[in-house]
Amino acid sequence: MKTNRIQMDHGAGGRASQDLVAKTFIPALANPILTELNDSALLEFNGVRLAMSTDSYVVDPIFFPGGDIGSLAVHGTVNDLAMRGAQPSYLSVGFILEEGLELTDLERLVTSMAAAAREAGVQVVAADTKVVDRGKADRIFINTAGVGVIAPGVEVAGQNARSGDIVLINGPMGDHGVAVLSTREGLSFQTEIESDSASLNGLVAAMLAASNKVHVLRDPTRGGVAAALNEVAKQSGVGIRLEESNLPVRPEVNAACEMLGLDPLYVANEGKALVFVAPEDAELVLNAMRQHPLGSEACVIGEVVSEHPERVVLQTGIGGRRIVDMLSGEQLPRIC
Amino acid sequence: MKTNRIQMDHGAGGRASQDLVAKTFIPALANPILTELNDSALLEFNGVRLAMSTDSYVVDPIFFPGGDIGSLAVHGTVNDLAMRGAQPSYLSVGFILEEGLELTDLERLVTSMAAAAREAGVQVVAADTKVVDRGKADRIFINTAGVGVIAPGVEVAGQNARSGDIVLINGPMGDHGVAVLSTREGLSFQTEIESDSASLNGLVAAMLAASNKVHVLRDPTRGGVAAALNEVAKQSGVGIRLEESNLPVRPEVNAACEMLGLDPLYVANEGKALVFVAPEDAELVLNAMRQHPLGSEACVIGEVVSEHPERVVLQTGIGGRRIVDMLSGEQLPRIC
Repeated sequence: MKTNRIQMDHGAGGRASQDLVAKTFIPALANPILTELNDSALLEFNGVRLAMSTDSYVVDPIFFPGGDIGSLAVHGTVNDLAMRGAQPSYLSVGFILEEGLELTDLERLVTSMAAAAREAGVQVVAADTKVVDRGKADRIFINTAGVGVIAPGVEVAGQNARSGDIVLINGPMGDHGVAVLSTREGLSFQTEIESDSASLNGLVAAMLAASNKVHVLRDPTRGGVAAALNEVAKQSGVGIRLEESNLPVRPEVNAACEMLGLDPLYVANEGKALVFVAPEDAELVLNAMRQHPLGSEACVIGEVVSEHPERVVLQTGIGGRRIVDMLSGEQLPRIC
Repeated sequence: MKTNRIQMDHGAGGRASQDLVAKTFIPALANPILTELNDSALLEFNGVRLAMSTDSYVVDPIFFPGGDIGSLAVHGTVNDLAMRGAQPSYLSVGFILEEGLELTDLERLVTSMAAAAREAGVQVVAADTKVVDRGKADRIFINTAGVGVIAPGVEVAGQNARSGDIVLINGPMGDHGVAVLSTREGLSFQTEIESDSASLNGLVAAMLAASNKVHVLRDPTRGGVAAALNEVAKQSGVGIRLEESNLPVRPEVNAACEMLGLDPLYVANEGKALVFVAPEDAELVLNAMRQHPLGSEACVIGEVVSEHPERVVLQTGIGGRRIVDMLSGEQLPRIC
């Protein structure tokens, strides 16, 4: 689809998003750090290695089962730092408020942010507030940027996947996307589906303490597990094989996805990490994950292979194989 | 004015903005760093001192004489870091795009950002793009966050003004606000008024090289020189005396302000710094400023006094005095 205007799928984390980055942002802003396209940039100051990351949050609705835009804005940026193996330290926060936003809603969101920051052990050290006229925003948008310290010896990056690595995830896929979409569309299911929105830095610290052979961490947010794995396959120049029968999805999320015409592989998560670890340490890391509250349902979902480089291939239950590509269009707008 | 909803003046940098920070943000998010309320936070990592800052940019229109929202988003955050005496190093960028934004406009803005970053010597190392539905934003909002290094021995902060300090500014007031407002309102003047939007880190480096007695730097953006001086007076617990006849304003800006009913003291600048320096080094710093292209019109505008603590007082031409307070309402919405 060719267009000379921004469309919703430019923000959906799929192919249109990648195109925009590759054609518009990278050529103008290019530098070796940005071009790595990791969840966080790695900065060095006098031998101290810091990760830096940013995300804006425009989720609609701003309150959803299991979370809200305030806590999400903390979790999301904390996780981007954690995915680089960093211990998140400080956040900045930029609010864009629409004239007419209820102050009680703002207070609720700020309180939720503060609780999420405390829980993750990060401090909000810089903040900014802008207000725009009614009808020029959608209640509230939040940007957070963060910095964290990468301990000596930690080398986690999207480029580091190697053939033989085992791919783990810390729990079932798709909870966040389905929770947000159901609320937005006013759907109700027998079991309420809650977002998995959470800060993963504690879980990551536990994994890194258990093994120094964690090669890649990636949080499957926009575009879901499919997009995140495709990114890593490309960055590392490897193939990834998934076992369909191993992919964890809650039955109620599965049912909702069927009803909504969604594939859980493409649905956003906000409390999940994909973990690439050398095979000899996979058991060790899996055990460390399972001992953490956010990893009790951790499991193996696939492995890195030398075949089909830059491609993610799913082994289906009936012995078939299909390529898991990035989405070219938009599946779920404004999910984070 | 009491209200339970966000109003435009909550974002105008005056008293309503301060109230929102004091009553909603600080109680929830409080920590010793945030509570300092400086343009940047000061962070320490293993003896390395970093400044961190963030701002969102929602200026309307997005292109204006002398700049655009892209370069402004670089200048603004670079300046917040520079006002802490830091040499800005890295920026993160978060774009919120409205569906339907022309790609050529986006490319023009990104190119402008890139040029501004090169000129300031900073790298954009992390970026994020979100798209929201048509009518849910206003073409483009940009957040930048930045980090920079504070050299050993540099101690610049809003708390450090002392009685006797001389107050300097690097050029005339109000250019940015008048340029933006004129464009927005479709006004044209005989002389086109251009925004002063610029990165001040080079100018600041020149000042800090000339003297180690620069106590406070503050960029008078939203709320203008009046708001910035009131903030410093409060943070340092001092009085500030301004000499009306010394306040630099271009004749065309003065004329436009008269027509628009604005006081240049309250109009936003995006390439100006207020400098508080010990009297014995004032001449030295003034000369250093004047040798820099962005300081050729630098001048003394006032001094710090022990009388009327926390108040800014203007000596008028006819020997009178008036208190220069913060604005309680909104003067210029969406100026940055």
